[in-house]
Amino acid sequence: MNDYSRFEKQLSFLREIDKAKSIFRNTILFDSSRRENDAEHSWHMAICAMIFTEYLNEPVNNMGRLLQMIMLHDVIEIYAGDTFAYGTAEELSVKNEREMAAADKIYSLLPKDQAKEFRSLWEEFEASATPEAKCARLVDTFMPVYHNYMTKGQKWREFGVTKDKVLKRCEYIKNGSDELYKFILNIIDDAVKNGYLAAK
Amino acid sequence: MNDYSRFEKQLSFLREIDKAKSIFRNTILFDSSRRENDAEHSWHMAICAMIFTEYLNEPVNNMGRLLQMIMLHDVIEIYAGDTFAYGTAEELSVKNEREMAAADKIYSLLPKDQAKEFRSLWEEFEASATPEAKCARLVDTFMPVYHNYMTKGQKWREFGVTKDKVLKRCEYIKNGSDELYKFILNIIDDAVKNGYLAAK
Repeated sequence: MNDYSRFEKQLSFLREIDKAKSIFRNTILFDSSRRENDAEHSWHMAICAMIFTEYLNEPVNNMGRLLQMIMLHDVIEIYAGDTFAYGTAEELSVKNEREMAAADKIYSLLPKDQAKEFRSLWEEFEASATPEAKCARLVDTFMPVYHNYMTKGQKWREFGVTKDKVLKRCEYIKNGSDELYKFILNIIDDAVKNGYLAAK
Repeated sequence: MNDYSRFEKQLSFLREIDKAKSIFRNTILFDSSRRENDAEHSWHMAICAMIFTEYLNEPVNNMGRLLQMIMLHDVIEIYAGDTFAYGTAEELSVKNEREMAAADKIYSLLPKDQAKEFRSLWEEFEASATPEAKCARLVDTFMPVYHNYMTKGQKWREFGVTKDKVLKRCEYIKNGSDELYKFILNIIDDAVKNGYLAAK
């Protein structure tokens, strides 16, 4: 290794992102035992993406880029915290600014070339425009909705989430897959019918 | 969706692998607060692999395959449990048989074509022959050794792990990267010097 200072930067990033294992989300495990954290969620999303490729409106040609994007999409939350998808308008409005500052901070731990590469993956995810980003956004939305449904809406009920808010969030699923969107609409209706989710 | 039974199989796999979040390993977080689980470990390994590609003896041409392999490499532990890398000879000898049975069980939840595809990724990882598998094995070994070193050998000391056992395990690092192997040899020597790891 000729450039140990470069390697030390890479190690410092690897140590820092360990903290994603302690950023807990408002989604609970299927067995309802506890909330899941960002590291676990990213891993689960990746396997979901691997399985769901056949249902996408636009084919994913770059599996490497898709999975890299998924791995990195939440590391900014180490500094920015998890913003609940169904938070207040005020919470959601300051989210962007906080996350940009968090991205500056976390990616600057890496050597410049890798910082740029990793940040561009996160920006691609946020922009939701490429087939890979659309798929990443889809599974990032699908998984928590499905977890909520399978755990009888425990977190939806706790936070008084309404159907219209979930539907708005599910635009990312619509954007990625007509087939999966139909399935999600069905379980949302069923969730309302069963009292897991408030109709209004 | 024309084939709902196919989709239900895919969902059942996604629900079952949630249990990887409750399979705890003999590696603790950098802040020493608790052990990490298989889902978190797989996510951290993936980012390590993304960062370390420049140090590999053989270039990785298929990032998608590498990351898919990393995502799946430990799901068999849902049924087979985590076998401590420094376990007894008896523990390690029954590991293979138990893991093959576990692979039969977990992958058979998926539709046949995906079961075959996912299982072949796990088998490629186990065989450690392709550049992608060598890289996956490297990071699977590097991360716990580095975690142990940074947490002053807490788990090494608890289980009375000796230098020769760690060195044997690090053959996977040697196999993947001369540069990273040199770094690991240095920290192992330093661990012995500081009493984190038993010399014999």
